[in-house]
This record gives sequence, structure tokens and C-alpha cells, in this order.
Amino acid sequence: MQMLYRAEITIQLKDGMLDPEGDTITRALMHLGYTVTSVRTAKKLLIELEADCKEDAAERVDEMCRRMLANPVIHNYSIEIR
Amino acid sequence: MQMLYRAEITIQLKDGMLDPEGDTITRALMHLGYTVTSVRTAKKLLIELEADCKEDAAERVDEMCRRMLANPVIHNYSIEIR
Repeated sequence: MQMLYRAEITIQLKDGMLDPEGDTITRALMHLGYTVTSVRTAKKLLIELEADCKEDAAERVDEMCRRMLANPVIHNYSIEIR
Repeated sequence: MQMLYRAEITIQLKDGMLDPEGDTITRALMHLGYTVTSVRTAKKLLIELEADCKEDAAERVDEMCRRMLANPVIHNYSIEIR
């Protein structure tokens, strides 16, 4: 029987990759008077999917990340299944 | 003495707000053959800031969200300080 699982994927730029959006936010916060030393941005995807078991769900979501959601050249990703 | 804290902010569209990016990802995953019932997107910001204590850091980050980072009309946000 298939069950519904919720996967939380966090896709982040690898260390050393430039993050212009984060840099812009850093500058904007400093203009507002905050002492911010760095801002890094990441994307979070909350996916509901059907799978046979938790391991099966984790495997499918990992495959989705490799095939489409993340770019292995520039991104790290982590997956949490609930 | 000021210490360095790391804040993790998650900014998400409120329930009921349309999420066209999530819908597009849902369709794309279904075209690849995955049984996905919904995809919601969110933004994550990892901020390093100086503050007097953890509570002070949390308060400042909450203020940043209210003043600039999130739009209270359409977003929910959560903050975790490390």
C-alpha cells in the first residue's frame, strides 16, 4: 500500500560559490544599521509524495534532486522525510 | 561583549497563497513519472550576526524579518538561532 510522505529538501549553494542575493541582503541590512557579517541564501522545497515506505520515499526524493531539482556542480542538498 | 550567532530564517508563502513555482515543479516531476501530490517552495536565509546574547540575536532577526526580509501580507516566517 502506498502512503503519503512529506519531504523537506534544502538546496544550498556550495561553499565558495558566489551568492549575490545574499550579498545584496547583507548590504541592505547593514544600511538599516544591523551588524551582519554574512547572509547565505538557500531554497527549501516541501514535497508531498506517495511511496511504499520511508526509505522508498527518501530514495525517490534523492533521485528527483539528482535528476532535476539540484545542480550537482553548484549545489549541496539535504533531505528530511516526515 | 558581542558574540557571533547564526540565525536560520525560513520564509514561506502563507497557506492558500498561490505558489506558481511549486506548481511548475509538481508538473515537471509528474512528467518525469513521479507521483507527487504537492510542492511548496520556501526561502531559507542563513545570517551571521553579532549580538549580546541569544535572546538579543533572536529579537534583532525578528525585527529584520518584519522590516525587510518577509512580507507579512503573504509570508510566514520562522527563526532558529544557533
